[in-house]
Amino acid sequence: MSKVNLTLEEIYALAHATMVANGCDESNAAALADIVMRAEKDGSHSHGLFRVPGYVKALRSGKVDGQAKPVVNRKTSAIVHVDGGGCFAPLAQAVGLPVLAQAAAETGVAALSLTNIHHFAALWPETEFLAERGLVGIACTAYMPMMAPAGSTEKFFGTNPLSFAWPRPGKPPVCFDMATAAMAMGEVQIAARDGKTVPPGTGLDSDGNPTTDPAKIAAGVLLPFGGYKGSAIALMVELLAAGLTGEQFSYEASENDNHDGGPPRGGEMVIALSPALIAGDGWDDHAEAFMARLTGLKGVRLPGERRHINRQDPGPRAINEELVNTIRALS
Amino acid sequence: MSKVNLTLEEIYALAHATMVANGCDESNAAALADIVMRAEKDGSHSHGLFRVPGYVKALRSGKVDGQAKPVVNRKTSAIVHVDGGGCFAPLAQAVGLPVLAQAAAETGVAALSLTNIHHFAALWPETEFLAERGLVGIACTAYMPMMAPAGSTEKFFGTNPLSFAWPRPGKPPVCFDMATAAMAMGEVQIAARDGKTVPPGTGLDSDGNPTTDPAKIAAGVLLPFGGYKGSAIALMVELLAAGLTGEQFSYEASENDNHDGGPPRGGEMVIALSPALIAGDGWDDHAEAFMARLTGLKGVRLPGERRHINRQDPGPRAINEELVNTIRALS
Repeated sequence: MSKVNLTLEEIYALAHATMVANGCDESNAAALADIVMRAEKDGSHSHGLFRVPGYVKALRSGKVDGQAKPVVNRKTSAIVHVDGGGCFAPLAQAVGLPVLAQAAAETGVAALSLTNIHHFAALWPETEFLAERGLVGIACTAYMPMMAPAGSTEKFFGTNPLSFAWPRPGKPPVCFDMATAAMAMGEVQIAARDGKTVPPGTGLDSDGNPTTDPAKIAAGVLLPFGGYKGSAIALMVELLAAGLTGEQFSYEASENDNHDGGPPRGGEMVIALSPALIAGDGWDDHAEAFMARLTGLKGVRLPGERRHINRQDPGPRAINEELVNTIRALS
Repeated sequence: MSKVNLTLEEIYALAHATMVANGCDESNAAALADIVMRAEKDGSHSHGLFRVPGYVKALRSGKVDGQAKPVVNRKTSAIVHVDGGGCFAPLAQAVGLPVLAQAAAETGVAALSLTNIHHFAALWPETEFLAERGLVGIACTAYMPMMAPAGSTEKFFGTNPLSFAWPRPGKPPVCFDMATAAMAMGEVQIAARDGKTVPPGTGLDSDGNPTTDPAKIAAGVLLPFGGYKGSAIALMVELLAAGLTGEQFSYEASENDNHDGGPPRGGEMVIALSPALIAGDGWDDHAEAFMARLTGLKGVRLPGERRHINRQDPGPRAINEELVNTIRALS
């Protein structure tokens, strides 16, 4: 697989030009290009340029509005709502997250409900935004049915990612951002291509039988990580991202989607908490003593550490050449 | 294993008398007896009378103050703090949860930070309290090191339970309450008592070897559910229950505990969110349509359902006779 080196500026420019060429105004294009560039910067290729063709499909079908102007409404002192007006999620976040952070700094806890958005990116940009401002961040979103609830053989939950970030003044936050599926469908497809097996519990074949054959899972259904406990976390994500926002559950998103290959309309819930207000002075030293003990254990790595190391590198990124050519052809 | 039938009133009276005989005043004894009775009512034996000998140990050693008077402080419109004064958690919750529910009903989201408490019970009483008042509830607490973080073989995390409840007006909430360990230590201890084995992956013996012998795991270390993803959830629980409250992390709780066999001093974080304020009108019908689809899938059972079915039964509960005799001997 041939690679081409692109600087971070070139990655941003490629994503930005592609969005503009497909009907985005400056604010929509800039928010999208920023999120794509930052994913590549962190080495999170599956959420970077790889997503651009899907973004373009959603713009070309008219499902997503590249001229949308998200509207912020602070419902109470602690509740911020953003109606994205049909935009991709990053612009709605760019508008809503500063208001959320301000609210949480004032009240100690605040929640941001995002509706009428199309989420196709990672979740750590939201939670790390908060952590960089001294706040704990929690974020989750649903998608379209790809995963069977524990006990079932039918697709019903999205892969339903959950992200959490803990602030570390002067250091990158501790941050996880994980699908509640045992394995991403993309990884299952790659294992199938390479003739490998996947661990028990990854998914079921099209008859609902457990299998370690990734080709059969690709034609079947994913399972939650960790059995019924992971399934409970996936259920919580559906209820927070759709039930609590009033936006579409995964099954509704699928039923109402035009299936153009881009992300469906959905909701996102982001919660911010202030350790300075809740725990009070000394909260950071207390947590850092914990981190020192944790990282002192043999074999332990903090979540997000690998991304944050990648982020230090100011140099170009090696991108799949075929993908770059595909994206260039979209302008 | 011989059983004896006790009515719910007898279970309450046994727990209450045992607490009073060991130095509790009426409010401390009543809060404790209520939580024990409700666990048995729901069939959650591992958090019912089974815990009473541990509660007594903590009272007799002087670690827990059976006369404690928890103090509530509403730090902001949305942040409630309860200093338990060294009580068992249920009394601090009984004092703090109504204030939390009121705050969340006003602001849409609120958080309750509990410190200087000793938590030895289930978490669903907290989250279901909120759900019964139309609020989403999230609760978590740490303990003492019993579980190895992913990649490690050393005890560091507590079993770090997480509970979530979704309100269903006119129905019992959807509620999970789960250890982030592959199995709760209470269940491991009961399996050991009953001479049963536990599934592979539950834990390691004291030499770091995998075993299905619960007695050896009780002397060794538990593992997180679902590998590194479950370990990330356990880390989040430590940071919310200790980092965010300012109370002891599991490793601190152990270092500062007198190891009398009762629960150490620790913190708890409870978050409440209002779907009526966040999603607005129609939130309940929207969620109920989702529940109907989910429960329509073959093989799916809603979290908490079994407990809620048990709860309907007004009759006596079959309790381990040896346990009852042990508890009676403590008065």
